[in-house]
Amino acid sequence: MELNLQGKANVQALLLQYENFVRDYLFPIEQDAIYGSFKNALPKLKALRSKAKEMGLFAPHLSKEDGGLGLSLSEFGRISEVLGKSPLGHYVFNCQAPDIGNMELMHQFASKELKDKYLKPLQQGEIRSCFAMTEPQHAGSNPVQLSTTAVKVGDEYIINGHKWFTSSADGAAFTIVMAVTDPENPNPYQRASMILVPLDNPGYQLVRNIPIMGDVGEDYFSHGEVKFTDCRVPASNLIGQEGWGFALAQERLGPGRIHHCMRWIGICERAIELMCKRALSRELDPGNPLAAQQSVQNWIAESVASVKASRLMVLATAEKIDQEGAKAAKEDISTIKFFVSDVLMKTLDKAIQIHGALGITDDTILSFYYRHERGARIYDGPDEVHKTVLAKRILKQYAAS
Amino acid sequence: MELNLQGKANVQALLLQYENFVRDYLFPIEQDAIYGSFKNALPKLKALRSKAKEMGLFAPHLSKEDGGLGLSLSEFGRISEVLGKSPLGHYVFNCQAPDIGNMELMHQFASKELKDKYLKPLQQGEIRSCFAMTEPQHAGSNPVQLSTTAVKVGDEYIINGHKWFTSSADGAAFTIVMAVTDPENPNPYQRASMILVPLDNPGYQLVRNIPIMGDVGEDYFSHGEVKFTDCRVPASNLIGQEGWGFALAQERLGPGRIHHCMRWIGICERAIELMCKRALSRELDPGNPLAAQQSVQNWIAESVASVKASRLMVLATAEKIDQEGAKAAKEDISTIKFFVSDVLMKTLDKAIQIHGALGITDDTILSFYYRHERGARIYDGPDEVHKTVLAKRILKQYAAS
Amino acid sequence: MELNLQGKANVQALLLQYENFVRDYLFPIEQDAIYGSFKNALPKLKALRSKAKEMGLFAPHLSKEDGGLGLSLSEFGRISEVLGKSPLGHYVFNCQAPDIGNMELMHQFASKELKDKYLKPLQQGEIRSCFAMTEPQHAGSNPVQLSTTAVKVGDEYIINGHKWFTSSADGAAFTIVMAVTDPENPNPYQRASMILVPLDNPGYQLVRNIPIMGDVGEDYFSHGEVKFTDCRVPASNLIGQEGWGFALAQERLGPGRIHHCMRWIGICERAIELMCKRALSRELDPGNPLAAQQSVQNWIAESVASVKASRLMVLATAEKIDQEGAKAAKEDISTIKFFVSDVLMKTLDKAIQIHGALGITDDTILSFYYRHERGARIYDGPDEVHKTVLAKRILKQYAAS
Amino acid sequence: MELNLQGKANVQALLLQYENFVRDYLFPIEQDAIYGSFKNALPKLKALRSKAKEMGLFAPHLSKEDGGLGLSLSEFGRISEVLGKSPLGHYVFNCQAPDIGNMELMHQFASKELKDKYLKPLQQGEIRSCFAMTEPQHAGSNPVQLSTTAVKVGDEYIINGHKWFTSSADGAAFTIVMAVTDPENPNPYQRASMILVPLDNPGYQLVRNIPIMGDVGEDYFSHGEVKFTDCRVPASNLIGQEGWGFALAQERLGPGRIHHCMRWIGICERAIELMCKRALSRELDPGNPLAAQQSVQNWIAESVASVKASRLMVLATAEKIDQEGAKAAKEDISTIKFFVSDVLMKTLDKAIQIHGALGITDDTILSFYYRHERGARIYDGPDEVHKTVLAKRILKQYAAS
Repeated sequence: MELNLQGKANVQALLLQYENFVRDYLFPIEQDAIYGSFKNALPKLKALRSKAKEMGLFAPHLSKEDGGLGLSLSEFGRISEVLGKSPLGHYVFNCQAPDIGNMELMHQFASKELKDKYLKPLQQGEIRSCFAMTEPQHAGSNPVQLSTTAVKVGDEYIINGHKWFTSSADGAAFTIVMAVTDPENPNPYQRASMILVPLDNPGYQLVRNIPIMGDVGEDYFSHGEVKFTDCRVPASNLIGQEGWGFALAQERLGPGRIHHCMRWIGICERAIELMCKRALSRELDPGNPLAAQQSVQNWIAESVASVKASRLMVLATAEKIDQEGAKAAKEDISTIKFFVSDVLMKTLDKAIQIHGALGITDDTILSFYYRHERGARIYDGPDEVHKTVLAKRILKQYAAS
Repeated sequence: MELNLQGKANVQALLLQYENFVRDYLFPIEQDAIYGSFKNALPKLKALRSKAKEMGLFAPHLSKEDGGLGLSLSEFGRISEVLGKSPLGHYVFNCQAPDIGNMELMHQFASKELKDKYLKPLQQGEIRSCFAMTEPQHAGSNPVQLSTTAVKVGDEYIINGHKWFTSSADGAAFTIVMAVTDPENPNPYQRASMILVPLDNPGYQLVRNIPIMGDVGEDYFSHGEVKFTDCRVPASNLIGQEGWGFALAQERLGPGRIHHCMRWIGICERAIELMCKRALSRELDPGNPLAAQQSVQNWIAESVASVKASRLMVLATAEKIDQEGAKAAKEDISTIKFFVSDVLMKTLDKAIQIHGALGITDDTILSFYYRHERGARIYDGPDEVHKTVLAKRILKQYAAS
Repeated sequence: MELNLQGKANVQALLLQYENFVRDYLFPIEQDAIYGSFKNALPKLKALRSKAKEMGLFAPHLSKEDGGLGLSLSEFGRISEVLGKSPLGHYVFNCQAPDIGNMELMHQFASKELKDKYLKPLQQGEIRSCFAMTEPQHAGSNPVQLSTTAVKVGDEYIINGHKWFTSSADGAAFTIVMAVTDPENPNPYQRASMILVPLDNPGYQLVRNIPIMGDVGEDYFSHGEVKFTDCRVPASNLIGQEGWGFALAQERLGPGRIHHCMRWIGICERAIELMCKRALSRELDPGNPLAAQQSVQNWIAESVASVKASRLMVLATAEKIDQEGAKAAKEDISTIKFFVSDVLMKTLDKAIQIHGALGITDDTILSFYYRHERGARIYDGPDEVHKTVLAKRILKQYAAS
Repeated sequence: MELNLQGKANVQALLLQYENFVRDYLFPIEQDAIYGSFKNALPKLKALRSKAKEMGLFAPHLSKEDGGLGLSLSEFGRISEVLGKSPLGHYVFNCQAPDIGNMELMHQFASKELKDKYLKPLQQGEIRSCFAMTEPQHAGSNPVQLSTTAVKVGDEYIINGHKWFTSSADGAAFTIVMAVTDPENPNPYQRASMILVPLDNPGYQLVRNIPIMGDVGEDYFSHGEVKFTDCRVPASNLIGQEGWGFALAQERLGPGRIHHCMRWIGICERAIELMCKRALSRELDPGNPLAAQQSVQNWIAESVASVKASRLMVLATAEKIDQEGAKAAKEDISTIKFFVSDVLMKTLDKAIQIHGALGITDDTILSFYYRHERGARIYDGPDEVHKTVLAKRILKQYAAS
């Protein structure tokens, strides 16, 4: 699909560079790194990160001072879309979740010490991080329900709790953990805080990499179940102030959601490319390709239309965030979260159907996306929560009138 | 729903004027003019047209020389959306189909004589016109199949044929008719021409206003079945040149489709307003409004999201037409044609369901839209044709690569 | 579509007779009676009722003693489906709503006097009746909210209230009205009663026939807004006992819903027949019928499959009612109510799309069904209510375990 | 969900026995056998097969002479549904695809020798088999395109070809292979034959177990890519006669499809059970379970309704096959193939959404079904093929009239 980019020429040129990088260097190693062993692929990936640095393409989301490209969110959005065409894209350029969220959070709210010790190597891709918020015993859609506690004793926090879906915990150097520090606060949204925990801490345990849709995963591609047992960290590891946990989580999750949406559009573009190529090459009879079937044409048209709509909404939201901040765009973010995740899953489903038996094998990348992006309608707030957020905002406008 | 207009301040101000006009003057007379008698409402409508002229809001699509506002298509698009909130909107401001299409066509391709005699009073709202293309015996999705003929004899054309869905024929001063002038041309797309026929011609007959979804209709709100029997018009009534029929139809239909899309978005906004107000005011039990139901919230959110996506795609298409012309935007137009008409019907359906029994009565405007816009997925090319157009364009890109 | 009837041979033979009657006598007069004037068609319809009586086909739902065919509900279901192929079917055979519901109710619960005076002529098709329950100010999905009152003074009830969607009130001889007789009863479900009101009563007023989807309607095909103002009727006009209103409404609505479902399947069969015939006869190019389009084939297949599923569920529900009574089948009835109404609207929508422009005209019966059956997802409980009824029943099974 | 079984009491009793077996013995070992190693679980599974034999429940589909229960297809259908509640169900009772299809085929068409040598141990569960038809280079939806050849030389066939989706090849004792024996036959449907190949043959090679949706699989749970290279087998290994390949494939696939449909209904029942239990136990806030959410209620209701519809259609089809044979039910089988596979995937999707993050883990069985049943809309003919089969049959009825 053509790029309808209305931005400046320099972004256009950048996009082409990223596009070529993804096609030339990432597509060829996907089978090994995604369906094979991610750990075994680490040397290759490290080399590609060096190449990205050499080309001046590394960490595009960061400011120029921090080694990035100094782009606006809407400019980065276009790049993020291109990177999304491979599951390796964001990782190689060091703008992958959850690290990108942690970078944004620490950039704004971490102390200088924490920045020097943890943020800088994170920005340079020397270490990875994770984020421990979701708990197995509580619905993620109600973040107020948290069992993990951090009790301040002297100049330390003692953390106890059980978390899961701590993505990429395996191999990470530190996590940021959400824990209740003020359980008696009458305002439930002020009970929790965020604390940085280095993962070589003896009070921390990676229980397992949770098997997700058939993949146990490893290293970056993993989702950890973790435990904190009398886990002691310096009180100075607090991010921001005590009681800021939920406020920071909102700060972190808002942009996090739009990052997902941008990436999903890239996945859709990859799926559309695959479905078109398959439709053109696969013949029902000699000279009668799948592409001549009206059902296939309908699927391609519907996919292209809905992905185009998604891109425009995501970019409009990014521009709003650029201009007015993430808070002003809260409902816009909710809107794209449920709209684009739906488009994503429908597009993948159509791509698989066009591939027939091949579509359910791991011989294409579709199986990976179909399985691992089923979570898109669940993580960072299920569709139902975001629909309610949006509906209430709209209803409020009419209630006032 | 808020206006996310990114345009200039003057367009913003204009929008507010149109919005107020529609609410203050058109909403109150809808019951009489739409569900009652349009003909009886003509004096009131004429008075409102005068008011619109006084306020400098009349015919916003026209150039300033022709008495309009000299707007770009994307600027006009925002206004068209606002006018779409009432079935009377475009009519009162004289930018209604099929007249707007005829104005565009004649502005570009009619002779000076025809312009003076027909286009000027049309632009000023003194007369109305119609467009006779569709034939009952041929699928509209294959415009090459035409039975109507125009034989040149001396300095006249003698036209014979049977048309239907000649919208607004009842009370129109003239029609533009598609007729085969060169049946032997090896290129079927060069066989037809467009000819202007004044409707006081004795060879013309309005057979009936076709009853559409329960409405026979009258005057502007009607769809005529018409016949041409040895209907003689001066050869100078030809629009453009002989054989240009299909080329001109494409010129005419492309922008025509985006005009529909803009209007549909206005209808969706009206439906969302009605569903929200109903959800807030209707109680299941005292203190328990429909708005508290999760299903209702889901419908509102899904409607708002898909309408927002529609607006962004329509405006992006309008901008492309402004910059590159309608031909370059052919697939974009096909995309919005099937995408927005689907959103339209789903939004109306949800609004009706939220209104319960009231929703199927003519006590709200929803019934009118639900019935008369069912055609949106059919007229100017059914969904299936536009999906194929888009799919083939996309497939072509990959076939080349 | 073939009949998969597994019943006895005599029902098969009956079905064929009804099928032929509908095709031979009803299809030809639909344009006049449905889109023209129902009142003007009354003489013809009366003659057809006589013919039905002569053929021994009249009032198939009644017991043999009452002049009917003495069928089980599941046997009648197959006949009802055939009658549903024309909007005139049930009327001509005197098994139309709301009369059929009133017949069932009165047969079980009316006094001998009321039966002699009102039920007998109703069963014989000499008079029509209606049912006044829904009120404009209260959500139909919460039937406990009723404003209409009936105060017993001496041996009379004095009724005051405002109702709408009193279907077929225009021309009816009597109505059964739901009114609150015991407003202080702690159990809200025991506050109301059902009372028969002859419509020549001076305290009764037919305010208007509510315009529904473009049709004001008349006589049988109408939905009345009615008022009761100090409307006095003999206390002996009570149906059943005081306080039985809701219990009787449930008795009446349960079977009423399955009657609708049966009829809807007939409508679907008609729509499938129309879409197939249109697909075969309409050509895109010479020799290239719509039937060759894959989209059209998909729509036909999806329609046929879902209608077949609907029929099996409706018949299974009818058999359950035959064997265990309507109460035992409450959730089954809710299931078919929302399932079949959805299939109905989707099937009609596809049939219209296949007909193109013709599909939105009143030149086929599709427009009538599309407009008047939009209420199917609303009347007798909107989809959302029935889904909740079913879900709660299912959840209860697992809560117990 | 209750069983609406209308069959005889003895089937009811049988169903309860199977239901208890599945719950008591299979649910507990699923984690190990499905997400762990199927090979390691073989001893346990073998013990369960012995238990099934002792209880007289083994191989319910077989005639009593062959050690089965002598059930009709519609009776077996109910049992198959119960077995479908676990991925291990059919395997343990030896009625799993592809073996069940091979048993049916060989029972009808294999020579006595082949029956004695291969069918008997297969029926007794001593060996497993597979079926090699699909080829990677040809669309499965056009079975006429086959590259694999079998050339008769003396009293042997020499087979060469490349197959994939030879399910359960890993560990199987023999395969039945489709190969072209008469490439010049003017009727393409008479070119191929079915030949039995023991898998210890040196000309046979299991290239790999194809990774499907993240699982390489092993033993019974695998899908093989296999090659035949100058693979010689006795000519007497022919099933039926030369040229019967496609006819036999139709014989084999028809019932095969209904077996899948029966199994899918069991999967849906399992998913509904899981979603209800989760909805009841998961709380958003204390005392506020997911089950109170209207969206969740909608999903449960929609799932239950569509699964009920599916069951009725599948059982009606089974009865038709019992009475009139598989050929007469060709379109019925196509109907349930696309209808039920759609219901299956939608039901699984809803169950996952209700489980939230847990739903995408391998901690429930939903992930297995979601991944491995995505093929349901593809294998044994993609939806699109079956829709066309059905539509053409329906259209034919109207073309004739």
